[in-house]
Amino acid sequence: MEDFVYQAGTRVLFGKGQIEHLPEVIAKFGKKVLLCYGGGSIKRNGIYDKVYALLKDCEIYELAGIAPNPRIDSDREGIALCRKHNIDVVLAVGGGSVIDCAKVVAAGVYYDGDPWEMVSQGKQTEKALPLVTILTLAATGSEYDDGAVITNPETNEKIGYGNELTMPKVSILDPAYTYTVPAKQTAAGSIDIMSHLLEQYFGPDMTYLADQMLAGAIKTVIHYAPVAVKEPDNAQARGELMWTSSLACNGILSQGCGYGGWPAHAIEHELSAFYDVTHGVGLAIITPRLMRHMLNDDTLSRFAQYGRDVWGIVGKSDKETAEQAIDETEKFFTSLGVPMTLSALNIGEEHFDEMAEHAGRNGRLLHAYVPLSKEEVKAILHDCL
Amino acid sequence: MEDFVYQAGTRVLFGKGQIEHLPEVIAKFGKKVLLCYGGGSIKRNGIYDKVYALLKDCEIYELAGIAPNPRIDSDREGIALCRKHNIDVVLAVGGGSVIDCAKVVAAGVYYDGDPWEMVSQGKQTEKALPLVTILTLAATGSEYDDGAVITNPETNEKIGYGNELTMPKVSILDPAYTYTVPAKQTAAGSIDIMSHLLEQYFGPDMTYLADQMLAGAIKTVIHYAPVAVKEPDNAQARGELMWTSSLACNGILSQGCGYGGWPAHAIEHELSAFYDVTHGVGLAIITPRLMRHMLNDDTLSRFAQYGRDVWGIVGKSDKETAEQAIDETEKFFTSLGVPMTLSALNIGEEHFDEMAEHAGRNGRLLHAYVPLSKEEVKAILHDCL
Repeated sequence: MEDFVYQAGTRVLFGKGQIEHLPEVIAKFGKKVLLCYGGGSIKRNGIYDKVYALLKDCEIYELAGIAPNPRIDSDREGIALCRKHNIDVVLAVGGGSVIDCAKVVAAGVYYDGDPWEMVSQGKQTEKALPLVTILTLAATGSEYDDGAVITNPETNEKIGYGNELTMPKVSILDPAYTYTVPAKQTAAGSIDIMSHLLEQYFGPDMTYLADQMLAGAIKTVIHYAPVAVKEPDNAQARGELMWTSSLACNGILSQGCGYGGWPAHAIEHELSAFYDVTHGVGLAIITPRLMRHMLNDDTLSRFAQYGRDVWGIVGKSDKETAEQAIDETEKFFTSLGVPMTLSALNIGEEHFDEMAEHAGRNGRLLHAYVPLSKEEVKAILHDCL
Repeated sequence: MEDFVYQAGTRVLFGKGQIEHLPEVIAKFGKKVLLCYGGGSIKRNGIYDKVYALLKDCEIYELAGIAPNPRIDSDREGIALCRKHNIDVVLAVGGGSVIDCAKVVAAGVYYDGDPWEMVSQGKQTEKALPLVTILTLAATGSEYDDGAVITNPETNEKIGYGNELTMPKVSILDPAYTYTVPAKQTAAGSIDIMSHLLEQYFGPDMTYLADQMLAGAIKTVIHYAPVAVKEPDNAQARGELMWTSSLACNGILSQGCGYGGWPAHAIEHELSAFYDVTHGVGLAIITPRLMRHMLNDDTLSRFAQYGRDVWGIVGKSDKETAEQAIDETEKFFTSLGVPMTLSALNIGEEHFDEMAEHAGRNGRLLHAYVPLSKEEVKAILHDCL
């Protein structure tokens, strides 16, 4: 079992109508609020008006139009707004992209330089504005962790940033806010959750406890994602997916385990940096191919355990179990209705070389669960066509 | 799925040698430290000297001799010390009893009145001294939750207290510090962990995710407790039990579920209030009898799920599975070497009436997982003889 330092101090308000507590939540931090949101779905579903009604005593400034793969430009804009208006608290209303963008705004206000420098060089700040989130999509877990992933379209880079300061102070999780999420986004979000869990499950030096908890969380996604896709207002399904998303990415399920080095996210980030594909869709396409590539004598027993503990396969050899588990994973993603090839997204091989080069920059995929050379990453991408 | 508010902001430093960070941890809060500990095992295993060496620049005052079922007298003494010496931070070094006692000291300093009044009437304070813990026994989970259980020997009462202010700021969890815990205490601690998990597992309105995580955590105890009893310095077993203890009691595994109302702890608290038995031993004796009493048509499917998910029983009817699961639970406790009857502890029925009366005060066992009348509690205690 490995050493760790763990802290996840976000206050989670979970359930129907928890937004009613927003005034007291915000009042703790001040009156000047930067409201961050995306393409405007919060205007259609009424949350926008609700926020304004609840915060009628606050001064609200807006950072709107944050893109699904949030761009550094939005952060630059948000930081300028915070400085100009002396913002007290950042309020992110949306999915992971909005929250990720808001995290970099919250820290970037205190960074003396361009925020892309801060992100790409992993520079830490002394402090950050307090961040409050209202979640509208179960996917990234950004509502309960400190991480953000930001894209720079000029350099085709998508880079992670985060530290204790960018952990939300309060997150309001109302599953009812995800009832209006379309089936495709629900599917993609669920695949993102599952991918975060697989990333931890396929790691070295696993604990017995983490194995159990991760398998259980993966099974929860397998159990409820199809329900939420079919019945968008199924409260139980939406609630379980939302809370699973929050626990899937903040480390609580795998403390004490070795670093996984599961490279699905790293490879997919290149895909969405180059083509702006929905993150969960990219993951669905890559994951089964990656798994087949990673299945070897060393990893066989782990994949077999995955087959038995997650997919309930019994009475077969390790090899059969492992192969069936990967097939089941692919069938599950397919059943959710997402495109399962790059061709279906009109993506060809023209940037594979650059993407593979970039995914493995600084030799980081040489420390993956199964080390990957640039050529291997290209081979995996070819399998995805 | 039910609404919830959740926050567990304790910073956990887990692993060998994490105590080396103690100086910087304490320095954040001040220089005047109240060191709380129990019967002196920390002097024998060297932690006491280590703390003094590390905190050589601090002013340390001592609250020593905290009893296994911590008594309100110790709190009175600790509060007086804090006031007299203007203590900045409370440092609890020990198991759950020491930490529980320290929590009530930390809050009680700011309570204008006797701390038993604060505890027994659940009075809240405006603030509390910051609490840092160094754990030496995996059992209660007090290192990662806000709760304390305090005994008043004058009234034979054992009552819970706690709120956000009594959550430890930092907990240092070094599994190596539990290598010297004797087999009997290791067994009792493991049973306490398992009991916290059962308390959540047998509840109404369970989520799929919680079912999976709780079953996984219970299986972790079943897997590693016998190892730790036999091989006291098995790092993996000690580590997994320690981290499971921390997660077992702070609610993270069962948020969104209904309140369990599993009354093993309530009944056992009477036992240890009257006879000062080791808490985990009391739980081992009570739990299988309680389970048999609670098994009925309404709860059958839940007990059967327990049998299948936790004990891996397959191919049997619900009834057979449920009954076998209870038998397996009893066999497991027995295998750990704890006494399994009250008679073995020289406890007779003379106080059963009073204990049953007290366990069910304010009608609280009428809201148990299976509602229990006073007569039923007495019947369960009789079964334990």
